[in-house]
Amino acid sequence: MKEFELIKHFFTEQNVKRKDVLQGIGDDCAVIASTENQNIVVTTDTLVAGVHFPLETSARAIGHKAVAVNLSDIAAMGAKPSWISLAITLPDIDNAWLTEFCAGVFELCEYYNVELIGGDTTQGPLSITITAQGLIPEGKYLSRSGAKAGDWLYVTGEIGDAALALQHINNEVTLEQDFIEPIQNKLDYPKPRVLAGQALREYASAAIDISDGLLADLGHICQASNVGANIVLDAIPLSQILRDSLFFDDAIKLALNGGDDYELLFTISEDNKVGMETALTNVGIQCTCIGQINATQTISTTLNNKPVPISSSGFEHFSEK
Amino acid sequence: MKEFELIKHFFTEQNVKRKDVLQGIGDDCAVIASTENQNIVVTTDTLVAGVHFPLETSARAIGHKAVAVNLSDIAAMGAKPSWISLAITLPDIDNAWLTEFCAGVFELCEYYNVELIGGDTTQGPLSITITAQGLIPEGKYLSRSGAKAGDWLYVTGEIGDAALALQHINNEVTLEQDFIEPIQNKLDYPKPRVLAGQALREYASAAIDISDGLLADLGHICQASNVGANIVLDAIPLSQILRDSLFFDDAIKLALNGGDDYELLFTISEDNKVGMETALTNVGIQCTCIGQINATQTISTTLNNKPVPISSSGFEHFSEK
Repeated sequence: MKEFELIKHFFTEQNVKRKDVLQGIGDDCAVIASTENQNIVVTTDTLVAGVHFPLETSARAIGHKAVAVNLSDIAAMGAKPSWISLAITLPDIDNAWLTEFCAGVFELCEYYNVELIGGDTTQGPLSITITAQGLIPEGKYLSRSGAKAGDWLYVTGEIGDAALALQHINNEVTLEQDFIEPIQNKLDYPKPRVLAGQALREYASAAIDISDGLLADLGHICQASNVGANIVLDAIPLSQILRDSLFFDDAIKLALNGGDDYELLFTISEDNKVGMETALTNVGIQCTCIGQINATQTISTTLNNKPVPISSSGFEHFSEK
Repeated sequence: MKEFELIKHFFTEQNVKRKDVLQGIGDDCAVIASTENQNIVVTTDTLVAGVHFPLETSARAIGHKAVAVNLSDIAAMGAKPSWISLAITLPDIDNAWLTEFCAGVFELCEYYNVELIGGDTTQGPLSITITAQGLIPEGKYLSRSGAKAGDWLYVTGEIGDAALALQHINNEVTLEQDFIEPIQNKLDYPKPRVLAGQALREYASAAIDISDGLLADLGHICQASNVGANIVLDAIPLSQILRDSLFFDDAIKLALNGGDDYELLFTISEDNKVGMETALTNVGIQCTCIGQINATQTISTTLNNKPVPISSSGFEHFSEK
């Protein structure tokens, strides 16, 4: 067990040193300076080997993804990520693995000026739990509960590629050779929409990041906001690779149910549309209007302007129809 | 996997609702109000089944201990615990187990007015990671690095009982029947010294909680403060049960190396002794002076006023002599 103490050195050498971290790694707690007129947002996500990533995933991708899924939650609140704590459970000590894992963690941390302020290293089956925190001006955070009937439904980026990569890994689909690497990268190195989230906080009425799947996460917004929504299936942004690899129906099913996209799904009033589109363009993020919020408390879908039924027993069963 | 979403209900019904939690469980992040003139302390600890607690440990004890070891770190900073995030990985869903686990978690949270603000529930081998946060007036936190030559070395409570319980579980010692339950409780239900920590912040020069063992944790203070220390072995507070169960030498070895005590080890200047002792008495906490800090940069021990050697190869090897 003492050896596990030694590997702490992997986590103490980092380039990010924030002024608001009064005490970093190395004491009983980290200490953070007071933050006047700012709210702090906090999120925790665990990745378990074989459950949240395939066992053969590279150490660098695991490190990246563990940070990315947490920063994605911070982005969905419109906040700016600041500090993370990292709890890692390892079956054994593999210096090469740890070096690569840390590279994945710190690349993202450096890019977003996020300091690793502490954590724990324990022996056991591989799993990583990160608690990430961020700052946002007082009262400005986005939640899932602000969507209103009439608001437009938007999504950043393209949806479904991570799920396609998972199908490829599970031998459920055969991809053209040229498609494999870019699709694998979408699964392994998701980009948290941190800048988009901050740009949206002046405009969006509700926001969530897509981790469970577009339909399930829209369900979370609808439930929290007590509204319904219609999705225009032909409007869902699909990558050229996804379109080229699957029939349209299968591609749409994957986009609706796949998950692991880490794009932002958000709602916006008619009045805020132009401002929002300008703000996202300024940070270089593509967004697409894929539907509208309504008062029905159910989620419907249309294709070619015609209703397409989804299972009455719930969104989860859509893929069974 | 969907079932694992359902067990969230176990964690949403809690009695603690803090005013500074603007958004609790149920969105992408929790949101915490700004805290003027307060520093925030943050700590993370993971408990892995079979590593940090015996496999047969009760669910309630696991829940208690997972919170307690984190609050103990907060106590060692002199801070007041405020919020926790809980990431739990479970092999399967066992309602009775979860009910007991939550009872253990929430008993402590309610006692200290700590709100569970989020977390994650995943499937895999049993392990619990808690990130705990606390508040402390700006700049008032205790660290490991403030000990000075001449300061007195103190410890709260009694040391060695948790290690005795572990020896009993591993059949390394035979305990009298009456001793088993109280000793088992010391291992399973450690009391984080939260009130003592807050009382100490006006007086102590350095502090740490004893998790690795008295000698190892004193080593952490000495290293961080660039000092040495002498421990008066006859002064170490041992419980009557420990004295009655082991020879004195074995009891002292256990107290020095056992760990899992979650008492506070702290240093204090001559000038602050009386004030500190009064402050701890006011919160009902026993403390004992067990030695003194010096400038040697090594740790020595005395018994009956005579030096007793500890291995030159380091504190960890003391038990091998």
